[in-house]
Amino acid sequence: MRIGVDIMGGDTPPNELFSAVYDAAEAFAPSVSFVVFAQEKNIVSLETRTRANIEFVSAKEIITMEDPPLLAVRRKKESSICLGIKALKEKKIDAFVSLGNTGALIASAMMALPTLPSIERAALIATLPTAEERVSVLDVGATVGCKPHHMVQFSRLGAAYKKCIEGVELPRVGLLNIGVEQQKGTGELRDAYRQLEALTQEGHFHFVGNVESTEVFRGQVDVLVTEGFTGNVFLKTVEGVSTFIVDYLQQAIAEHLDSEEVRRALEELKTKIHYAEYPGGLLLGVDGVVVKCHGKSSPKALFNGIKGAKACVENNVVSKVSACLLHSS
Amino acid sequence: MRIGVDIMGGDTPPNELFSAVYDAAEAFAPSVSFVVFAQEKNIVSLETRTRANIEFVSAKEIITMEDPPLLAVRRKKESSICLGIKALKEKKIDAFVSLGNTGALIASAMMALPTLPSIERAALIATLPTAEERVSVLDVGATVGCKPHHMVQFSRLGAAYKKCIEGVELPRVGLLNIGVEQQKGTGELRDAYRQLEALTQEGHFHFVGNVESTEVFRGQVDVLVTEGFTGNVFLKTVEGVSTFIVDYLQQAIAEHLDSEEVRRALEELKTKIHYAEYPGGLLLGVDGVVVKCHGKSSPKALFNGIKGAKACVENNVVSKVSACLLHSS
Repeated sequence: MRIGVDIMGGDTPPNELFSAVYDAAEAFAPSVSFVVFAQEKNIVSLETRTRANIEFVSAKEIITMEDPPLLAVRRKKESSICLGIKALKEKKIDAFVSLGNTGALIASAMMALPTLPSIERAALIATLPTAEERVSVLDVGATVGCKPHHMVQFSRLGAAYKKCIEGVELPRVGLLNIGVEQQKGTGELRDAYRQLEALTQEGHFHFVGNVESTEVFRGQVDVLVTEGFTGNVFLKTVEGVSTFIVDYLQQAIAEHLDSEEVRRALEELKTKIHYAEYPGGLLLGVDGVVVKCHGKSSPKALFNGIKGAKACVENNVVSKVSACLLHSS
Repeated sequence: MRIGVDIMGGDTPPNELFSAVYDAAEAFAPSVSFVVFAQEKNIVSLETRTRANIEFVSAKEIITMEDPPLLAVRRKKESSICLGIKALKEKKIDAFVSLGNTGALIASAMMALPTLPSIERAALIATLPTAEERVSVLDVGATVGCKPHHMVQFSRLGAAYKKCIEGVELPRVGLLNIGVEQQKGTGELRDAYRQLEALTQEGHFHFVGNVESTEVFRGQVDVLVTEGFTGNVFLKTVEGVSTFIVDYLQQAIAEHLDSEEVRRALEELKTKIHYAEYPGGLLLGVDGVVVKCHGKSSPKALFNGIKGAKACVENNVVSKVSACLLHSS
């Protein structure tokens, strides 16, 4: 297996992020090798401290966080993002991990890779803990302002993922809204509600209706469907609040941190929720494994993103979800 | 001072919620008296266990959570919500607290009460803790799908509130978005960004730009401005995550709960974040004190809503914010 990693465009310097690739190359050798996409000047310094199962591809340009996504993808064909997606398309790599400009990564993937059966737009999927089973949330930021039928497609995608990958027989799908009543929220959500209600009768998933974000963490749904802007705010709020709370508690009960159990409970909580531990957001809906890590990712977070990408390839996530979609459409 | 309380339309039975009014009437006597809006059948049973500083107004109808807001307000003139807002308009009460249908409460208030200078739409404002000072967030659910100029008005409202009520000299205002770059998010947000940038030069507040919800809890802004749907999802996510975490920790470190300090830290955290302790959302922008409590409010949460309303009247919040807006527009 070959995993491509774009180490440009994040907040952490590429040379620091490279340590995540190095660690992964060490941990997952010999079955996994790596292709690092970086600028020539970075590659030069990295080549002195590399491993045999890592190779480099030189990118002539970088897409920055400030670049307008569509324009950047059209104009910067030699950027690390575009070269990585091209390598994925040409099957030179089996997965591509990036922490660069989200919009550009999605745009590049959508332009180059075919979408899965009955899917028009890709969604970033993130998985969060709840009081019961884990919930998969999509879209957490691929498509800002998507249409009702896209949310319906996200429901299909999320349900297929839960069914084929996590073995949930009849996934419960909920629509993120500001009230449970059918008429709540925007016109787009009401429209999506009606379409999902009709679709639930086909038996591929169980549409439970609107879900408020207060209730999500009780474990009422397996799949939480939302438009990309709202989903991204939702995910980042979860991260912000949990970091705030854990920091607050670590201060408030500092004296008790010599208690092994309290310290472990707080650490486990961080692991469960904090984004440094996420497998990264998987871009679901395109024919290829694309994992987006947070722009603020530490080397540890990038390592987890790589691990997530590896798991997706090993589990044949894309072909399983694709087969499941074919069966249900 | 006379505070009106609508005890209909929430998830908790009116007779249980009445205990919050009773406790408040006892705690705040003799300076505060109460007007309870309820259905006749509830009033009959409550009159046997009331106090001298509580009176009742009989509502012939209820607006349920399922009622479409605008239609309900037009058709159910004798509902507890409409009667309460009418009493507020006619200065028969100084504040009105409700936990019923949010949309109907806002619609009724917007139709009956004048708006403050230069304000077209009202916003629900909620205050949350951060690692530094508290942040006021608006709109958390009054106006779904509001326009850029409404968000600009919310910035003025929020800044006036922080300045006149909390004494923050030059409030830092941020726009809730999915990235800090100017071109991030929806077209409406980009438009609001441009308008706010121009406005910040007038010197009434400092526009810091886009803020991600991961960063809000670091205390980067005093006022967080957002459209009502997004703001409501944001607020409810904060509630959901914090409840989940505190519950998780209470289980995980159960053995240590005989430790007074750990127990107190968790309780304080709940008090800081959990909605049962909120003063309720104040509807800012109309000429009158309207406090919206969560539909799921317990008697304790309603009591806090009443306390919040009382503080707003005592501090002349509406006239101060109004004067501040006049001065700055």
